[in-house]
Amino acid sequence: MENRTRAAVVGYGNIGKYVIEALEAAPDFEIAGIVRRNASEVPQEIAKYKVVASLSELDNVDVAILATPTRKVEEYALEALSLGINTVDSYDIHTGIASLRKTLGAKAREVGKVSIISAGWDPGTDSMVRALLEACAPKGITYTNFGPGMSMGHSVAVRSIEGVADALSMTIPLGTGVHRRMVYVEVKEGYEFKKIAEAIKSDPYFVNDETHVMQVESVDALRDMGHGVNLTRKGVSGKTQNQLFEFNMKINNPALTGQILVSTARAAMRQKPGCYTLIEIPPVDMLAGDADYWAGHIV
Amino acid sequence: MENRTRAAVVGYGNIGKYVIEALEAAPDFEIAGIVRRNASEVPQEIAKYKVVASLSELDNVDVAILATPTRKVEEYALEALSLGINTVDSYDIHTGIASLRKTLGAKAREVGKVSIISAGWDPGTDSMVRALLEACAPKGITYTNFGPGMSMGHSVAVRSIEGVADALSMTIPLGTGVHRRMVYVEVKEGYEFKKIAEAIKSDPYFVNDETHVMQVESVDALRDMGHGVNLTRKGVSGKTQNQLFEFNMKINNPALTGQILVSTARAAMRQKPGCYTLIEIPPVDMLAGDADYWAGHIV
Repeated sequence: MENRTRAAVVGYGNIGKYVIEALEAAPDFEIAGIVRRNASEVPQEIAKYKVVASLSELDNVDVAILATPTRKVEEYALEALSLGINTVDSYDIHTGIASLRKTLGAKAREVGKVSIISAGWDPGTDSMVRALLEACAPKGITYTNFGPGMSMGHSVAVRSIEGVADALSMTIPLGTGVHRRMVYVEVKEGYEFKKIAEAIKSDPYFVNDETHVMQVESVDALRDMGHGVNLTRKGVSGKTQNQLFEFNMKINNPALTGQILVSTARAAMRQKPGCYTLIEIPPVDMLAGDADYWAGHIV
Repeated sequence: MENRTRAAVVGYGNIGKYVIEALEAAPDFEIAGIVRRNASEVPQEIAKYKVVASLSELDNVDVAILATPTRKVEEYALEALSLGINTVDSYDIHTGIASLRKTLGAKAREVGKVSIISAGWDPGTDSMVRALLEACAPKGITYTNFGPGMSMGHSVAVRSIEGVADALSMTIPLGTGVHRRMVYVEVKEGYEFKKIAEAIKSDPYFVNDETHVMQVESVDALRDMGHGVNLTRKGVSGKTQNQLFEFNMKINNPALTGQILVSTARAAMRQKPGCYTLIEIPPVDMLAGDADYWAGHIV
């Protein structure tokens, strides 16, 4: 394919690695380079790419895929936009999305570029499904049930508790958006498991959920990147009750996030200047090939 | 809500009735009138609306919702566009979509209006899900399994066979896109059921599917507007195999179609001139309220 889109990957953690795989698998992208704080540390698998400490060191970047911690997204996105580069991210603090959209939107319109935010699977493609089901049945209740799978946020919260050497918090769906937390901890020498378990159960992250804490020898032995969603809506189409909808996924979590970021980077090249969440993006814009092609293929 | 969108409903069959219910339930629409061939025949439930024989008799129509037979869609859509009226339809001949999109697109751009075609549930919202899953896992296979539910097309095909008084063809999903046809027929006096059953099984509509034909006393006693879909994709995100996705619905068929047409009519008011299928439409455009509102609500 001619005129491949040149993407920079900002951040080379768990998500960044899968973003690179998705870029390598895509027919219409090339990797302009990878931005990481410690640019001198270049793992063998990315030795063929330009690895730099700052986005400004890369040439002709069309879109920056931000695989950074969520709290760094705004800073990196503003920097990229200032350099005249489109951005996509998987910002996942639900309550911060409207504000981030406003801030990046102002900057994006100023520089004539595009940011698409919160483009993971939730928020992200799940949000698109939720919007679609609202359109199909405007009255009703949608429940999003997560898991079984590891919650990054909850695991990090447990690891910050004194005496915890390592931790893993699994999210178990109980239906109607209610979740159980199964927490596995490695305890540091000299600390008491019982006290740690109490601290976890009274932590704001856990206090409202059924939480079970277990001591294990190795948290690493339990780690699995699989995750899942069961999203349901029961609602009313027009005046007809009891319309039933369900969306399920069983997926490798960072691999799906990486792929969605890359598909969204494609969509970013096709929007007017501004900042968007995924529900504002036509699904076809996420696909390689144009709308004329897909109108004859996905019907 | 101020400035309600004025919708005309073209056709008052099964779908048209549910379109009116969905319009009545929507906060941002008003019904400009109903167009039907026999405008003098006005059922009691629509007596409060203007019922006319031609769209040109209605005033200030923003969008025409075409609840006509699929083969009449192009003719009515071209007429509406010529009158400066946006259109939506649920045209469902999969192989004709690309051509219809081209014809209506040329006209729509000429007159500066919008047509959104094939906006039912399949093609339609299922197509949006299929596009979304392509974006999530670009390599892989999607299967759409329909039913259990009545197939309009197959039922009509059976009714056109000599000696059939009434017929109902149910679509039964067997998985991986394979379907069984369960056909219920009322036989006219003087005709032999066995010959009718053979004619059905050798009809192009049925010849490739496992088909069972049964004689019944009353087809009407079996009619149920419930339908369903089970849509699956197993595919590759980046280089990660075995990503599993599934979308299910159990719905009243014409009620869902009517609602989707109304949600799409809303989206038609928000696009640039041209003709679109649903995969080209941002999901948020189908919802009452703007993107700023929804960015803070569906996240």
